[in-house]
Amino acid sequence: QMPRGNLETIHHRALVLAQIRKWLDSLQFKGAFECMRKLRINLNLIYDHNPKVFLDNVDTFVKQIDSVNYINLFLTELKEEDVTKTMYPSHTATPSPSLQTSTAKKIDVVCDAIRGAMEKLNPQKYFLSILTSYVRKTTPELETALQKVHELRGKGLNFVNPPSKEALKYLLFLVDVNELYDYSLGTYDFDLVIMVAEKSQKDPKEYLPFLNTLRKMESNYQRYTIDKHLKRYKKALGHLSKCGPEHFVEFLNLVKDQNLYTEALKLYPVGSTEYKSINDAYGDHLYSKHQYEQAGLIFARCGSLEKALEAFVACSSWQQILCIASQLQYSEDKMASLARSVAGKLVEKRMHENAALLLEQYAEDYEEAILLLLEGSFWEEALRLIHKYKRLDILETNVKPAITEAQKNHMIFLDSQKTTFARHKQRLSVVRELKEKARQGLLDDEMPGGPESDLFSDTSSIMTTSEMSGKYSHSNSRISSRTSKNRRKAERKKHSLKEGSPLEDVALVEALGEIVRTVDKMRTEVNSLLKVLVLFGYDTEARQLQKAYHEFLQFIEVSISEIWIPLDQSNTTPVLGPHSTANSIMTSYQQQKNIKSTEQDSELFTAPKLCKATQWKLELLD
Amino acid sequence: QMPRGNLETIHHRALVLAQIRKWLDSLQFKGAFECMRKLRINLNLIYDHNPKVFLDNVDTFVKQIDSVNYINLFLTELKEEDVTKTMYPSHTATPSPSLQTSTAKKIDVVCDAIRGAMEKLNPQKYFLSILTSYVRKTTPELETALQKVHELRGKGLNFVNPPSKEALKYLLFLVDVNELYDYSLGTYDFDLVIMVAEKSQKDPKEYLPFLNTLRKMESNYQRYTIDKHLKRYKKALGHLSKCGPEHFVEFLNLVKDQNLYTEALKLYPVGSTEYKSINDAYGDHLYSKHQYEQAGLIFARCGSLEKALEAFVACSSWQQILCIASQLQYSEDKMASLARSVAGKLVEKRMHENAALLLEQYAEDYEEAILLLLEGSFWEEALRLIHKYKRLDILETNVKPAITEAQKNHMIFLDSQKTTFARHKQRLSVVRELKEKARQGLLDDEMPGGPESDLFSDTSSIMTTSEMSGKYSHSNSRISSRTSKNRRKAERKKHSLKEGSPLEDVALVEALGEIVRTVDKMRTEVNSLLKVLVLFGYDTEARQLQKAYHEFLQFIEVSISEIWIPLDQSNTTPVLGPHSTANSIMTSYQQQKNIKSTEQDSELFTAPKLCKATQWKLELLD
Repeated sequence: QMPRGNLETIHHRALVLAQIRKWLDSLQFKGAFECMRKLRINLNLIYDHNPKVFLDNVDTFVKQIDSVNYINLFLTELKEEDVTKTMYPSHTATPSPSLQTSTAKKIDVVCDAIRGAMEKLNPQKYFLSILTSYVRKTTPELETALQKVHELRGKGLNFVNPPSKEALKYLLFLVDVNELYDYSLGTYDFDLVIMVAEKSQKDPKEYLPFLNTLRKMESNYQRYTIDKHLKRYKKALGHLSKCGPEHFVEFLNLVKDQNLYTEALKLYPVGSTEYKSINDAYGDHLYSKHQYEQAGLIFARCGSLEKALEAFVACSSWQQILCIASQLQYSEDKMASLARSVAGKLVEKRMHENAALLLEQYAEDYEEAILLLLEGSFWEEALRLIHKYKRLDILETNVKPAITEAQKNHMIFLDSQKTTFARHKQRLSVVRELKEKARQGLLDDEMPGGPESDLFSDTSSIMTTSEMSGKYSHSNSRISSRTSKNRRKAERKKHSLKEGSPLEDVALVEALGEIVRTVDKMRTEVNSLLKVLVLFGYDTEARQLQKAYHEFLQFIEVSISEIWIPLDQSNTTPVLGPHSTANSIMTSYQQQKNIKSTEQDSELFTAPKLCKATQWKLELLD
Repeated sequence: QMPRGNLETIHHRALVLAQIRKWLDSLQFKGAFECMRKLRINLNLIYDHNPKVFLDNVDTFVKQIDSVNYINLFLTELKEEDVTKTMYPSHTATPSPSLQTSTAKKIDVVCDAIRGAMEKLNPQKYFLSILTSYVRKTTPELETALQKVHELRGKGLNFVNPPSKEALKYLLFLVDVNELYDYSLGTYDFDLVIMVAEKSQKDPKEYLPFLNTLRKMESNYQRYTIDKHLKRYKKALGHLSKCGPEHFVEFLNLVKDQNLYTEALKLYPVGSTEYKSINDAYGDHLYSKHQYEQAGLIFARCGSLEKALEAFVACSSWQQILCIASQLQYSEDKMASLARSVAGKLVEKRMHENAALLLEQYAEDYEEAILLLLEGSFWEEALRLIHKYKRLDILETNVKPAITEAQKNHMIFLDSQKTTFARHKQRLSVVRELKEKARQGLLDDEMPGGPESDLFSDTSSIMTTSEMSGKYSHSNSRISSRTSKNRRKAERKKHSLKEGSPLEDVALVEALGEIVRTVDKMRTEVNSLLKVLVLFGYDTEARQLQKAYHEFLQFIEVSISEIWIPLDQSNTTPVLGPHSTANSIMTSYQQQKNIKSTEQDSELFTAPKLCKATQWKLELLD
């Protein structure tokens, strides 16, 4: 990175930097500054070298520099970067405790500190530097700067050097005139506006009529008009809200146009009709953006109950639906039919328990409620309703058939999953063996370089290996930017389980992980089914299920360390040994690094955690 | 592992093994066998070399060997171990597809195959080998062997060589006489018993009276007595159950003594009084072992409702409690007081929603139900009940105070967690820097060996590093044998957060992970609180909470890659470079391997996965 011929210059600069650091440590800012300016060393170093010392001695700095131009130069060169870490890293000193932990930005901190010093020492002398310190802030405080200039003129201090005219000129040198004009308009101070406008190249025929129209307006409406002109819509809303009810339509339109509902709501008391109007408009807006639940809440809180009901129905917020329907004084019949329709939607979303509650409590259809609970495998809750409503007939007609059916389905499901699992696992070991052989073959080919070859001479071998694994890291890095769920979906499409596909092993691990997660998640469900099987005397079926599930879980547990191999155990042995050279070690090390970073990138290569803590077994079935 | 002087012998043996393999491949079993016997090569190789070929040609094997003694020798030497993998690994051939995937054990497979062949070829000639093949099975089939001997005698084939006497003698040579006596007793065949007893050293005065008592018994009771004598309790139960109701007390006592409830239940029809008695005893047994839920199920299914209720109350199975109480025809008052008492227990277990259901539906105490829902932060369900029972007064008295309180608590909690998180994170980087410096110092010390030193000459350096990391891997391997939850607890105790403690970095990562998991889990809870805050117009509070939580989650997200550093990025740079030697690379590589395996062992070093898929934010608050 440093051209070889320049070593002497660099050597020189290192000495210079050391000298500058000494100066700065001994607070000899003037010397440091002169030297840095001459040798074009970035002035940020003055602060970055030791922020705390600089800030503690900022008065000394200003006094020593004692030049408006130099201070302007320093302020202008400020940037967020810490040059002790980037341009002038120091190897000797330990890094001083930085002030960056505070949220304030460096530029703002320095500008404010220096302005403070200048205002204390001689605000008139440093006037231009003070302006610079406002303009340089990360969010330039142009209005304050303008105000300062305006004050200067107002005080009639024209005899003081520099006069306000000069100051304004300087400000226009720092800031674009149109920007400054807008900012002056934003102070709502027409004197200031005209002062800036006069200095600009603007045509008075353009700005004077506009200013005259504004002058004629009521104060709040005037400010609103200026704010709107400057696209400061939030401020505009504030001023417009003070203009009385005759402007409320204009207000509401601005709110809708600029999507400023939350700001608008703050401007009116909660009970007012204006508040309700804004709120309603907000609800409509959210509804149109398919934010049904939020729209429902917004409608509900200002009493737009019909709209709220519609919104809550759209997102199946069943509890809220019931609240609203109750507030709308729905008749029993109407409530029952609403409950039935919502229950239907909930069943589609596999929310059987909630659907059953609706049917039980709002439609009084106990039988249907119980059947829904059975459909959703909520065995105990179904039994509770059966006994609550004395519908013991359902035990024979539905419960027993449902639980034996569930047992059979579980057995079939576990069996098919286990078969797939075993097949994928077997195939994975075959694929891995093939890949390992291919890898060893590759290494052997590169051995002939021999033990005498220089460490870095054969860089091509390193290239080869990193190229080889390039497709892995590439595909995985693209994936990692998505959410985990999408990622898994995306990978399922991308990695093919077809035999011989290049990422077959990855696809197999994915598929195996999917099975592990699915089966592991069934613990509670199996436990609940086992209990109800025992309750109705289906001990054989229960025992069969417990055995099958237990064996599958055990199979998974012993398989995990074979499928998700700890990284450092894979493929290290053949590489180190009496025949290996520095070069061969390097090569294989690089290769492993690549493999590892690939695996690190992806959550594929960490074994799923099993919920071993969940007690699902019934000891009585063992 | 092989002493240097023996190279020639080993060389010889390798040649011999190659020859044996050739013989086996060409089915020349006889040659192979003779050679192996002479050179004391383990005979298992005959099978292990290629199990499929052996099993397909087992007839040829028996024909070629053609010796009872040799076959006995072969059978006796069988063991589960695959000697091609342990004693005689072959480097040239690819491992033949093994048959080990089937669950049957090798010894059993070989015994059965050879017996099959012998019985086909000449059962009389190979009689003793056939006996051996029964005895050698992993679960010796002594009864069948005895039966064979007995048959031989029964057939009067005494003239055949070997006579049954010889056969029995041979059997007694293979098996302990007392064991054989018990087995003979187990056949319930007194001829057989006496035959064995006569050959044994047993005193006829001992066994004859016992046998005579047995002879006088009813057949089932006789078998029961024998079974019990042989401690074969399951069989004993089966026989005893056939002895009629007068023996049922004896039966039940045996069941209780031997804890054979499930076996006993199978012996009686479900509706019978015996079934109910066993079932009841089973329930008592489970209850006494604090398996309350299972006891409840067992009591419930045979109608011991009072006992079932007691058991379900003991484990707070609230739905089952209600089912049983309903079956017991509880009055409304009794039901209400039961519901209140169970609800109290559920609240203790933080199951507010279920407790509220009990109070609402079984005690008709709507107000208390709503208050419980608020206490458990089930805002929407609380609102549903408020509207269902027209208790809108509770909105002002309880709901609003509860949600603003909840918002405050969340803010305080998030703030304290964030502070702790930032402090731990900062400290972690300090500790890591210190450790990294210590590590580099260690490496520098080992450099002097110089670039010319041989690759393996300085093994001490490798030792040092692995010793250094010994305490890490040790502590972690001990941990990994426990369940994840216990482990975390155990580590919390083991790893001290105290500054300067040796595993402070591990403790910090643990503590940080704990915070990440806790905060990440709050998404749904925060979302639900935000919605109800908006519903009641507490937009400011909602916005404040959303902002605080959002910022914390973002802070966590950017911090994760700093706390859980991908393995291959850590500490590699200083090791490879123009000054590194094969030796230095090796050393640092070994060291990294150790670090890595430590990190691999523990789930501490994988970053917690964030539930980014959970949509918790309300856009309207942004």
